[in-house]
Amino acid sequence: MNTYGKMIKLSIFGESHGAAIGVVIDGLPPGFAPDMDFAAREMARRAPGKNALSTPRAEADSVEILSGLFEGKTTGSPLCAMIRNTNTKSEDYNKNLPRPGHADYTAHIKYKGFADYRGGGHFSGRLTAPIVFAGALAKQLLIGVEIAAKAVLIEGKPPQDDTILRAKDDGDSVGGVISCVAKGIPAGLGEPFFGSVESCLSALLFSIPAIKAVEFDDGFALADMRGSQSNRTDFGILGGITTGKPINFRVAIKPTPSIAALQDTFDITTNRPAKITAAGRHDPCIVPRAIAVVEAAAAIGLLDLWLMSGEEIK
Amino acid sequence: MNTYGKMIKLSIFGESHGAAIGVVIDGLPPGFAPDMDFAAREMARRAPGKNALSTPRAEADSVEILSGLFEGKTTGSPLCAMIRNTNTKSEDYNKNLPRPGHADYTAHIKYKGFADYRGGGHFSGRLTAPIVFAGALAKQLLIGVEIAAKAVLIEGKPPQDDTILRAKDDGDSVGGVISCVAKGIPAGLGEPFFGSVESCLSALLFSIPAIKAVEFDDGFALADMRGSQSNRTDFGILGGITTGKPINFRVAIKPTPSIAALQDTFDITTNRPAKITAAGRHDPCIVPRAIAVVEAAAAIGLLDLWLMSGEEIK
Amino acid sequence: MNTYGKMIKLSIFGESHGAAIGVVIDGLPPGFAPDMDFAAREMARRAPGKNALSTPRAEADSVEILSGLFEGKTTGSPLCAMIRNTNTKSEDYNKNLPRPGHADYTAHIKYKGFADYRGGGHFSGRLTAPIVFAGALAKQLLIGVEIAAKAVLIEGKPPQDDTILRAKDDGDSVGGVISCVAKGIPAGLGEPFFGSVESCLSALLFSIPAIKAVEFDDGFALADMRGSQSNRTDFGILGGITTGKPINFRVAIKPTPSIAALQDTFDITTNRPAKITAAGRHDPCIVPRAIAVVEAAAAIGLLDLWLMSGEEIK
Amino acid sequence: MNTYGKMIKLSIFGESHGAAIGVVIDGLPPGFAPDMDFAAREMARRAPGKNALSTPRAEADSVEILSGLFEGKTTGSPLCAMIRNTNTKSEDYNKNLPRPGHADYTAHIKYKGFADYRGGGHFSGRLTAPIVFAGALAKQLLIGVEIAAKAVLIEGKPPQDDTILRAKDDGDSVGGVISCVAKGIPAGLGEPFFGSVESCLSALLFSIPAIKAVEFDDGFALADMRGSQSNRTDFGILGGITTGKPINFRVAIKPTPSIAALQDTFDITTNRPAKITAAGRHDPCIVPRAIAVVEAAAAIGLLDLWLMSGEEIK
Repeated sequence: MNTYGKMIKLSIFGESHGAAIGVVIDGLPPGFAPDMDFAAREMARRAPGKNALSTPRAEADSVEILSGLFEGKTTGSPLCAMIRNTNTKSEDYNKNLPRPGHADYTAHIKYKGFADYRGGGHFSGRLTAPIVFAGALAKQLLIGVEIAAKAVLIEGKPPQDDTILRAKDDGDSVGGVISCVAKGIPAGLGEPFFGSVESCLSALLFSIPAIKAVEFDDGFALADMRGSQSNRTDFGILGGITTGKPINFRVAIKPTPSIAALQDTFDITTNRPAKITAAGRHDPCIVPRAIAVVEAAAAIGLLDLWLMSGEEIK
Repeated sequence: MNTYGKMIKLSIFGESHGAAIGVVIDGLPPGFAPDMDFAAREMARRAPGKNALSTPRAEADSVEILSGLFEGKTTGSPLCAMIRNTNTKSEDYNKNLPRPGHADYTAHIKYKGFADYRGGGHFSGRLTAPIVFAGALAKQLLIGVEIAAKAVLIEGKPPQDDTILRAKDDGDSVGGVISCVAKGIPAGLGEPFFGSVESCLSALLFSIPAIKAVEFDDGFALADMRGSQSNRTDFGILGGITTGKPINFRVAIKPTPSIAALQDTFDITTNRPAKITAAGRHDPCIVPRAIAVVEAAAAIGLLDLWLMSGEEIK
Repeated sequence: MNTYGKMIKLSIFGESHGAAIGVVIDGLPPGFAPDMDFAAREMARRAPGKNALSTPRAEADSVEILSGLFEGKTTGSPLCAMIRNTNTKSEDYNKNLPRPGHADYTAHIKYKGFADYRGGGHFSGRLTAPIVFAGALAKQLLIGVEIAAKAVLIEGKPPQDDTILRAKDDGDSVGGVISCVAKGIPAGLGEPFFGSVESCLSALLFSIPAIKAVEFDDGFALADMRGSQSNRTDFGILGGITTGKPINFRVAIKPTPSIAALQDTFDITTNRPAKITAAGRHDPCIVPRAIAVVEAAAAIGLLDLWLMSGEEIK
Repeated sequence: MNTYGKMIKLSIFGESHGAAIGVVIDGLPPGFAPDMDFAAREMARRAPGKNALSTPRAEADSVEILSGLFEGKTTGSPLCAMIRNTNTKSEDYNKNLPRPGHADYTAHIKYKGFADYRGGGHFSGRLTAPIVFAGALAKQLLIGVEIAAKAVLIEGKPPQDDTILRAKDDGDSVGGVISCVAKGIPAGLGEPFFGSVESCLSALLFSIPAIKAVEFDDGFALADMRGSQSNRTDFGILGGITTGKPINFRVAIKPTPSIAALQDTFDITTNRPAKITAAGRHDPCIVPRAIAVVEAAAAIGLLDLWLMSGEEIK
């Protein structure tokens, strides 16, 4: 089900090449005047077509607020934000040939052949646009909190633009690692076990297409340490609950599966082997665009946890 | 909130040194005759006191079924499994000195000073016992599925017993990495975005105390690859949905925070610095015992996803 | 929170005089080709402006499907249906004078003064339009099921048009009782206690504005009987679970609170007494229009219960 | 599923003749010292065997707290309350002959023949004992709130003991109507539509076995009025949200289905007609015992709504 959250509830909808994508955000406090310019800037960070490093698709991504906002302030009832799909080239997609590394095949199975296959349909990374919008509202509500993500590795190395350009020139793609820190979160947020801060944030982060690993604090490096080293006092989460110290996490982004090179696939109607090349316009690396999405997910998750705690945000 | 799942709903309860711990499992199909010997063996894998590598606390961990079972078969109504706490030495714990690396401090803040501080209270690793019990039922219901976890690294090296013994001799502790594979899961399980297989499993895995990182398939290693390498056809999850191929994931377990060495802490009543040593009986490494817990979490999550898909298990 | 359902999840949004109202429906099976003409006819049954008995507001109520439908069939991902608000006369509403019997005052308190007060905002009966649309889909999915509601009492008497017209002529309004029967529901749907059929349906029915009472089978009349009379074999629900017999329920609709007569209210800014008259265009009786809403609620609730049971609908 | 609530979450478990019944209550604020004598008195109001009007079964109904309570105060983690079943006479029940008016048949179908049929199993009215316990805690947390229910009709007449005794002498049973008022609830609780106060309370009330009708304020009587009469200013709920005025509701309780008279049933193994007489010990009228249950349900529902509002209770 496409719903996240307990106090702030997000229901996202839409397909990449359908009429529109969007999100219904329930639980926003009334009387909040969102800065829509800030939201637009956040969405621009995620938007494609900005430079040579990303796909040339120029999406306008202009958001129309259908409900929940009156005279510039939230009413307290659900806010629906809709983004029309305008710039779509559906002829690029072949219904019967699932693109390797994409959700094409699994969506075909899950939805018994009825999934909208164009551009990944509902599984498209385009669905992260409403998440960034929701995150932009969450950031504004998280007064005193600073959430900042950045790319720390591209193809295993410290980020340099030529890394991505070289992959692009090779008709290939690269992934990377994004780190994120959230400062200003008070101690005591989170629930034991199934509602731990890590459980909530990881559930959100793993809903971002291409994220395949999530680690908190020193993550995998902790597994190599001894207790005398790992018993640090500066970790942001202990026992699933925030400590009041900054929360640090890192995520791994896999390389964009759409590459120019000819790849093996099969025909889902005949099960016969076939060849495919990614004719659509694609990013050689989505890491730069994913930074805003990671921040948005963190903001949404932390806001929900904060509201669950019953403590006022001020 | 201490509840997990949509079709199989787990509500866990209990504190380490309280009267009992347990779990209410709702959604079990009626007419299922659980093999209680198998469940006992699974719980023995997690139980302490087995050898020099684990804590000498000998917990009986015998499960009493309070409801949901009639003439050896599930009735379809909630099954409550209770484990009495018997072997507790509460005098080992100092209410005012939070143990470094433990949930003592965060639980104190979250519950405004009223948490049961003895042995970690509700945050104790002991609460994973009912999870292993629930996992043992889930494994039996997942006909045709094989879930197997193992330690792949202890203190950064391939597992060898002396690694743990040496840490123990040093009055220290070590962590490690557990890998897990689930075979026999059909294609098409999972939901897009917030209900992705990774989101569901990671939420469960991160509820296990000491797990600080989760990666699926090649995880962080994917971030170093190019698309031409990472577009593999043998991955178990694509777009958050199962492919029918084996599901692989790895988790990082941090070193046991309770170590014999004298550590810095502070007095929560005075905020003054203090020293603490872990007087309780503790594992120098919980990785061996955590293996059964990781398998249980995987089984519970996958069973829930399978039942959500509406497809029959056979 | 504005979300209903476990297997079929509805999230409604919108305000009476805002940009649009709508619903996100998650959980629809893929490959279902909804008959949109049927949906339009169902919505026409609820729509105002049809004759002298209802408000002269003529709402087009045309539905735009934003997502979840591809080549005329459901994709399996969330279907968002949006209805633009076009015919609104906001100058009819006075922000400071809550209309007696309406949600104006309670919405003002709940949303701390920021509710969209125009035409009842999010609390408007207009929000039942997306519920009727969702119900029209549910009816089509409930193969072999027949759900039929009708007015059985208007102002305490068997329905006659003049009853309503007389009230209208008096500048007053009337309520009534709607009965509903659902045939073709198999035995075994529902959950014990909090998930009983009555719990699920009543939660939906009481979300329809103006419904103040719900009774199942013989309802209040059962309280006057002896067990030898009430132990009937034709009741549709026993122990909260369906029996396979037709399900019968009745709901009470209170009179439309908006009446032409001058009424007492108070000014929310000064707390001083004031007078108000319903200047907007209103129904002297909403019972005729509510019939389609009651059927829709029953269809949605029963579909959700059916899908929860895991039994196929055929 | 057997779980209720958003902020205060109840998971009930148990069968009438199994090992135990109970409830896990999650979301209780930490540091609350429940008055267990009060809880015992509340449970005594529901307990059978008090006088000639109720069943001679003498249930001890002593509650054991398994978790969530430390040094007499709630810890903030889930509180599990268990009641052992001691006084059961299972030989009274015939597995193959469903008792008319009971859940025997529907439970048999729902649970595919595996339900615990003894004494109604999980569907037994005995499961309301943990609800009364939870309600006793909720009442204590609802500072300044007074919830009082009473029988207003027995067999259609103002309550007189002889009404019940006469039915008992006739080997028959009677039902009745309970009214309940909740004073001290602030304005602004509840959510629009699916989370309306009526939706939440009715879902809880209809989970009480034997309740077949629920009406708020003037309920069905409103359907006979004109708007000029029904636009009263003293109603407790408008638009699904509390007004700050007392909340009034009434429920109909059907007659106890177990009566001494010989009744028609059928054999579920052969589908052949059969005769049955209620050999067990049963109440000729459960209305007196249900009063405490209705109050408990109201207290639980209102506490959950209050906590959802984010407003402090003081």
